[in-house]
Amino acid sequence: MNFNEELKEKTRYIEGVLDAYLPKEEGYQKTVIEAMNYSVLAGGKRLRPMLMAETYKMFGGEGKIVEPFMAAMEMIHNYSLVHDDLPAMDNDEYRRGRKTTHAVYGEGMAVLAGDGLLNYAFETACLAFEMAENYEKYKQTAYALSILSKKAGIYGMIGGQCADIEAEDSQESVTKELLLFIHEHKTAALIQSAMMIGAILAGADKKQVDELEKCAYNIGVAFQIQDDILDVTGSIEVLGKPIGSDEKNNKITYVTMHGVEKSKEKVAEMSGEAIAILKSFPKRNLFLEKLAEQLIYREK
Amino acid sequence: MNFNEELKEKTRYIEGVLDAYLPKEEGYQKTVIEAMNYSVLAGGKRLRPMLMAETYKMFGGEGKIVEPFMAAMEMIHNYSLVHDDLPAMDNDEYRRGRKTTHAVYGEGMAVLAGDGLLNYAFETACLAFEMAENYEKYKQTAYALSILSKKAGIYGMIGGQCADIEAEDSQESVTKELLLFIHEHKTAALIQSAMMIGAILAGADKKQVDELEKCAYNIGVAFQIQDDILDVTGSIEVLGKPIGSDEKNNKITYVTMHGVEKSKEKVAEMSGEAIAILKSFPKRNLFLEKLAEQLIYREK
Repeated sequence: MNFNEELKEKTRYIEGVLDAYLPKEEGYQKTVIEAMNYSVLAGGKRLRPMLMAETYKMFGGEGKIVEPFMAAMEMIHNYSLVHDDLPAMDNDEYRRGRKTTHAVYGEGMAVLAGDGLLNYAFETACLAFEMAENYEKYKQTAYALSILSKKAGIYGMIGGQCADIEAEDSQESVTKELLLFIHEHKTAALIQSAMMIGAILAGADKKQVDELEKCAYNIGVAFQIQDDILDVTGSIEVLGKPIGSDEKNNKITYVTMHGVEKSKEKVAEMSGEAIAILKSFPKRNLFLEKLAEQLIYREK
Repeated sequence: MNFNEELKEKTRYIEGVLDAYLPKEEGYQKTVIEAMNYSVLAGGKRLRPMLMAETYKMFGGEGKIVEPFMAAMEMIHNYSLVHDDLPAMDNDEYRRGRKTTHAVYGEGMAVLAGDGLLNYAFETACLAFEMAENYEKYKQTAYALSILSKKAGIYGMIGGQCADIEAEDSQESVTKELLLFIHEHKTAALIQSAMMIGAILAGADKKQVDELEKCAYNIGVAFQIQDDILDVTGSIEVLGKPIGSDEKNNKITYVTMHGVEKSKEKVAEMSGEAIAILKSFPKRNLFLEKLAEQLIYREK
């Protein structure tokens, strides 16, 4: 099986896990559940649950205890999109070619659907305790839960969103340090969460989890810089969206700050570091290495 | 010490717990943290953490493991107020005599602050694992965490909010059953969560936790019906807000559906059942009994 076939099969597996863990659309609260599922089932690359599952496998993880966390991860990612798209935030009417949640269900219901997804992520992750058959597994699950919450919150993704909103309002004050803070928190934090949780649940030790945090930082930030590079060098046909939008919107990015060449060097450096860390563990996962590379060196 | 002095002292203790667990206002994410704390520190009766602490005490709970959950509970209550007040929801500019969070920090930051509080509630509750010194305590903490998440989500508070929003849009379709669903989920669920978690962390058994769930259901729904009664029979001087607003807004309440007399009977019946359950446990907590009574038979 080549990489793309494997990718497809693994994506199908993740869709199955999501289906199993998403709430049933019934009861007096049916509408908010429909709005939640509408957002999660809109598609997407399922990148975070995939990184989690593959890291879990790399450390010898077996069994299904990782699955509630995979679903929780994707719920958190999607709640952030639902709230990001709100008129009070980015005010986007379309995402992935479909109307956004608030455009279909109204703004109030979209706020609730986002809240519902974030909350349901923790409800779902808590189900892993029911699969934890001994004290050790209990401790691992609790550790994974604390990472899930921390990396999604004010010291993770929400912190990055806050800084990003403020940076847009006063772009002249955006320093290199602030830009890296935004990338690290808004983009890399959930990728860190995904890989760290996969390792924790498989029984990796503290040092390995710390290494993965660095690895995922490199993947996440390189992913974001590559995004900014493509906005300059990409073609509208390949990307499926207008290029040059950052320049038009006067958006400060790694590329506007350092230029395309330096940005490409930075991506190569970070990508190299990420892969080196992955190769340093006792057992290798070639699919995961390839996935990380493809994420970074993508053309769209 | 009389009841009111005791109430004051216990409220001060809870304020101290909140202070200890709220995040520091620093870093690039300072603004969202300020907005979160602005909302939590606006005051309020701290009813839910108080019910939790008193139930914990009633079952012989000692030590501080309940405290992160007390703080988490109040964070969840306050996030729901921040999002409820948004222009897309109730559009309230003032609460407790102060400008609401979105009125001060803007709508986008208020969405983030609510998300931040909900997420931080789980981060905070996870800290209890660090205080759990054995497998049994670990299991209790995990159970408490799953109740916290369930009662706040689509099968608890968010479910009630969804039904409430829809009921406002089509009041002719509001049945007795739907009205009770809304009260049970929007109002009673967090009170259930508070009392159940207090009991769980103190080591109460499954049957006792189930009994408390019923007890808190009665307290929560009676509390809500009393609110609706006061809107008809109260005086503007005592309540500090206009009376008759439900009738003016054509709002369907237990009182508009059943009349004041039947509503008072229902409150008396539910209050009696709640107190009877409290008295049925091995150890009594007179302050908690008095608190439950005062909550129901209040004049404002």
